[in-house]
Amino acid sequence: MACPMRARQIRFIWGQAMRTSFRYLSMLAVCLTLLVPVWLLAQTPQPWRDQGVIHLANSPYAKLHTIPVHAVTIRDGFWAQRRKTAVEKSIPSIWKLIEEHGYVDNFRRLSKGKDVPRKGPVFTDTDPYKWIEGVAMFLQSGDRPELRAIAEQTIDEIIAVQEPSGYLATQFHGQPLAEGRVVALKDRLTPAVLDWGHEDYCLGHMLQSAIAYYRATGETRFLDAAARFADYIARDFGPEKKPFLAGHPVVEMGLIELYRTTGQRRYLDLAAYILNGDQRIDRPLQRVIYTFSGIPFTERTHMQGHAVRAMYACSGATDYYLETGDQKYWATLENLWRDTVNTKMYITGGLGARWEGEAFGDAYELPNSRSYSETCAAIGGMMWNWRMLAASGDARFTDVMERMLYNAVNVGMSLDGTLYCYANPLESPGRTDPNRHSKEGTTRNPWYDVLCCPPNIERTLGALPGYMYSTSKDGLYVHLYDNSLLDWHLEDGSGLKVEQKTNYPWEGTVELTVTPAKKKEFTVYLRIPGWASGAKVQVGGKTLEQSVKPGEYLPIRRRWEPGDRVRLDLDMAPQLVTANPQVAEDFGKVALQRGPLVYCLEQNDQSGIEELSEVAIPMGKKSTEGFQTEFREGLLGGVEVVRHRGIAYEKAASEGALYRPVGFEQKKVGRDVELTFIPYYAWANREPSPMRVWVPYVPAGTK
Amino acid sequence: MACPMRARQIRFIWGQAMRTSFRYLSMLAVCLTLLVPVWLLAQTPQPWRDQGVIHLANSPYAKLHTIPVHAVTIRDGFWAQRRKTAVEKSIPSIWKLIEEHGYVDNFRRLSKGKDVPRKGPVFTDTDPYKWIEGVAMFLQSGDRPELRAIAEQTIDEIIAVQEPSGYLATQFHGQPLAEGRVVALKDRLTPAVLDWGHEDYCLGHMLQSAIAYYRATGETRFLDAAARFADYIARDFGPEKKPFLAGHPVVEMGLIELYRTTGQRRYLDLAAYILNGDQRIDRPLQRVIYTFSGIPFTERTHMQGHAVRAMYACSGATDYYLETGDQKYWATLENLWRDTVNTKMYITGGLGARWEGEAFGDAYELPNSRSYSETCAAIGGMMWNWRMLAASGDARFTDVMERMLYNAVNVGMSLDGTLYCYANPLESPGRTDPNRHSKEGTTRNPWYDVLCCPPNIERTLGALPGYMYSTSKDGLYVHLYDNSLLDWHLEDGSGLKVEQKTNYPWEGTVELTVTPAKKKEFTVYLRIPGWASGAKVQVGGKTLEQSVKPGEYLPIRRRWEPGDRVRLDLDMAPQLVTANPQVAEDFGKVALQRGPLVYCLEQNDQSGIEELSEVAIPMGKKSTEGFQTEFREGLLGGVEVVRHRGIAYEKAASEGALYRPVGFEQKKVGRDVELTFIPYYAWANREPSPMRVWVPYVPAGTK
Repeated sequence: MACPMRARQIRFIWGQAMRTSFRYLSMLAVCLTLLVPVWLLAQTPQPWRDQGVIHLANSPYAKLHTIPVHAVTIRDGFWAQRRKTAVEKSIPSIWKLIEEHGYVDNFRRLSKGKDVPRKGPVFTDTDPYKWIEGVAMFLQSGDRPELRAIAEQTIDEIIAVQEPSGYLATQFHGQPLAEGRVVALKDRLTPAVLDWGHEDYCLGHMLQSAIAYYRATGETRFLDAAARFADYIARDFGPEKKPFLAGHPVVEMGLIELYRTTGQRRYLDLAAYILNGDQRIDRPLQRVIYTFSGIPFTERTHMQGHAVRAMYACSGATDYYLETGDQKYWATLENLWRDTVNTKMYITGGLGARWEGEAFGDAYELPNSRSYSETCAAIGGMMWNWRMLAASGDARFTDVMERMLYNAVNVGMSLDGTLYCYANPLESPGRTDPNRHSKEGTTRNPWYDVLCCPPNIERTLGALPGYMYSTSKDGLYVHLYDNSLLDWHLEDGSGLKVEQKTNYPWEGTVELTVTPAKKKEFTVYLRIPGWASGAKVQVGGKTLEQSVKPGEYLPIRRRWEPGDRVRLDLDMAPQLVTANPQVAEDFGKVALQRGPLVYCLEQNDQSGIEELSEVAIPMGKKSTEGFQTEFREGLLGGVEVVRHRGIAYEKAASEGALYRPVGFEQKKVGRDVELTFIPYYAWANREPSPMRVWVPYVPAGTK
Repeated sequence: MACPMRARQIRFIWGQAMRTSFRYLSMLAVCLTLLVPVWLLAQTPQPWRDQGVIHLANSPYAKLHTIPVHAVTIRDGFWAQRRKTAVEKSIPSIWKLIEEHGYVDNFRRLSKGKDVPRKGPVFTDTDPYKWIEGVAMFLQSGDRPELRAIAEQTIDEIIAVQEPSGYLATQFHGQPLAEGRVVALKDRLTPAVLDWGHEDYCLGHMLQSAIAYYRATGETRFLDAAARFADYIARDFGPEKKPFLAGHPVVEMGLIELYRTTGQRRYLDLAAYILNGDQRIDRPLQRVIYTFSGIPFTERTHMQGHAVRAMYACSGATDYYLETGDQKYWATLENLWRDTVNTKMYITGGLGARWEGEAFGDAYELPNSRSYSETCAAIGGMMWNWRMLAASGDARFTDVMERMLYNAVNVGMSLDGTLYCYANPLESPGRTDPNRHSKEGTTRNPWYDVLCCPPNIERTLGALPGYMYSTSKDGLYVHLYDNSLLDWHLEDGSGLKVEQKTNYPWEGTVELTVTPAKKKEFTVYLRIPGWASGAKVQVGGKTLEQSVKPGEYLPIRRRWEPGDRVRLDLDMAPQLVTANPQVAEDFGKVALQRGPLVYCLEQNDQSGIEELSEVAIPMGKKSTEGFQTEFREGLLGGVEVVRHRGIAYEKAASEGALYRPVGFEQKKVGRDVELTFIPYYAWANREPSPMRVWVPYVPAGTK
């Protein structure tokens, strides 16, 4: 029986339901209309977004895989400050100087007919390339997007110069070079010209820059242009084609990264050919040594020659190993690495003992005042060790990389980001002297005609987030410590966040919060630095029972839950370090290290000491005794200074006769003084002042 | 009334007297006929016979005056052996090699149209020049007269190339140089070419050689040719004429010696102009530093640049002072000398710390293994100190000269006189390594394309007798000690012989017999070497009451009688010497010196020591304690070896990590060993073996 009241009620309810549904459906339709394109966009493959500093996802012999730069956000702390300086001060100011010195005009004069002579050395093209690469690295982090416009314009200027063949290098167009020399068009890319002409070097840096820019933006214009140049070389040069030569290695790395980015095997093959040296080209042994090219890479037995060339060649060779697993390469690389680290590396990680040829010296030839230690060589050293680490997962490579990063690389840019070191001595009279420290006669300069170092620092600091972690099949490697957030995933795709809270390198405690998207068993490989004896690790508030060994990755395998906490305590007590007694200039001396930082004495910080060359440090039984440390906020951008008792001798001891019978020496008596050490990277940021890393020691109790 | 008997008698006597007189008169006539030409010959001025290594008889600012080379006969002993080797082995073998390498053909191709390309670097002409100079020095001593024939022939070959203008240099005749470069005739002697082309250097050595040859033979052909070249320069170049430049100083010395030899003022003026630098020529600062030329000599404030160039320039400048007394020159020379001797000289007297530019380094930059110390630089140093000594009579210059002669110069020629050092390290791994010790990769080589050193040693050893004494207004200076006979005269012309009997430098006793032609009061200035504390002097068997100070000339003024005896006793106890603590590589180390000889450890002489880099010397309170010395006849041509207790550490200490916390170092324990030192000059005369001059020391009692 129908009840009119009920029917009305039902009609009402139905109608209302229909209206409500319609409203919701309309809203749904609107939502879908808006969301689908976003969803579709998200589904478009964007491989560039996930590629790291080097892209190892498909490299069969990479044990570790890089994470993209954007996956890590570096938060307030040691490196945030340096990166901010790089992107806000260094990058804009260097750009201005590159323009002022005509290094972009070198492109415009060819593309736009701008009526200016070519400026600078043959390899100036690489300065805008490396600068763009630096910008691209910061863009990958989402920093300073407004820099992209300058990069875009510059890329236009660059591409406009490319010839139909693909050739792209401004130095050889049948017109005079800055020094008046003319290279005929027909002589381009001939072995005699490649030996010094840097066309190969320009291609290498162009590839690295274009790939970094692609990884930042997804844009392929620059990448395509660089690939066209590479294609030209791959087509016309090689075995049974024209001979090619790396006069300044870097093209090997560039080509293999292009192979990784495009999957085109010909680039790997071309790199292999170059690494192997073309035996049809006959060059003097000295050039083969100097350029670190021209003979099969696997025939190298000693680290030698121009340090930057050697580091780039070794980096390229390691890239080749990562793709091919060629054991002869690995054996050579291991041997060269041991030779370098055991006999030819400064305590700062600096490489290259000789001003002559900016080159490695003999074993144990490591002069301090005359050290060359070009900033770029240490950067090349980081690149190489990063690749060796990827191949092996071995923490000794990370130790060296960290040593270079905090010291020999970091010292290269002033605290305000506008002055740069080219050579990095470990001892300095502080005076201006055109024979030492830099071609310009001062330690730090705003500009060098050979500009390689400043943009090299920029791209390194830009890329830094990408160096903090790697993934492996079974988990995550933590390489470097600083306040940061990793937002990435394990290799099976499951999401993972890791937050680091620390005041490293000033303090030794690092708190990590591990947050997998869901509970999951995997391994966190926590790096215990080689210098960190007695490191302690807690997981979830409990001290780990595993033994914690310095110089290794500590594998923490467990079922991780969101919010799990790991606490790492590194002993930051200052340490005195000696060198192998075969290092003639360090004999009887010690250096001070605290955590990853090498310290130095700068005259500015001492009082009552007339002459830095006349101090000694009395040494107790333990090398970590007798130090006071103090963080000085206002000093050198904020640094932990280290103080220790010292002895200052009369200046007279260092005056007068150069050679004297021994009796004289034994009579000398010193006064007690306090020595104040600052981190080496921060020296030469005040008025010029003497500096030294290695300080003579005397037995405790000596006067 | 006449008595017939008496008249007969008278006639008879008269007749007999007449006959006798006639006989005697005839004999007299015959004698006169025979003797007059001899007498006349003796009366012909032969100034060349009395001229020393440099001719200072008329130099107004020379306090001391040289004696001719022939005035001293060096008898059996230390230097006789080396001089014999030089003249019998080195001079003939180097001549053969000069010919084989086409350095005389470089003349013949121009004069005789010999169809061969020009060989070697631009400055090869100076090699025959210096070789002839070496021969001339030995000819002055009357040694090996048969060498004169080769010298004569070569002089013919040289003179035949001289152009009517006077120009004489084989490198620039519009034909390609060895490296393919061509210098147009019009570009000869232009500043741009003089900067590197060595035309000035060829003239300088030609002058020195021709003057030495004139002093040996009285022949003027070669001298006239050299003077014609100098006349051409003096006529066309100078202020208000064409600008001239010493790209490699030596011409200053050559021109001033030509002035001394000919009395022609224009040569001194030309030298003054060159020493002053022509401000019309604009050159980069680095070239001005490197060449030690181009700015007023008196504006130099530091010893710097190419060491040989610097030494030759300073020698020329001292020559200029000796002629003019220009006090600005003297002040500059004194300042440069102090800078060199107090901050830039090796203990061996070696000069030039850097392989880069064969150059002086900064103050206290004195690496041992990488020391350059070119043999020629030490020879240049001897030349300079010899001139400073002449100007001042100050024994500090002789001390430096002796140090150089016995060590840095003497090491340059092997014991057998057929192998030469170019660079002279103070430490060596003994291995062949193309990066060190010599351009050829071995310490000693029979030949260098840049041949400067071997003939430079030859001319120095040839001239050595001329360095042993000088005269002054009031007497005689005795500079060097060795078995020898001086047969000369005082400055007033009265004859003087001095005989030396000694076994110096192996023993410290020197017996001098002073024989003036007649009794005469004058001063004998006896050099007391700077290293010889406690030296004792006896005259006529009685100990001298004057105080005997090391590093000074001891003036012995008395009425000398023929046969007067002087006995000098020098303490030859071995001494340990330290370096100024600012010399980074010598810090904590000692060197061993005995008399004028610097010693070294060569691995060959040690037993039970695995690694020379791992030894130390325990040092007592006195630096002369704990030595045993022994003359070994059969070793290295006969040398006094010195033995001392040493400590050898496990080789492990120099293996493994380059840098390590201090604790490690303190644990090392050594074994007692005996260290055997040999004179530095004698090293590298056996199979290649590690060597070191500076040895770490530890307090006595250390293990």
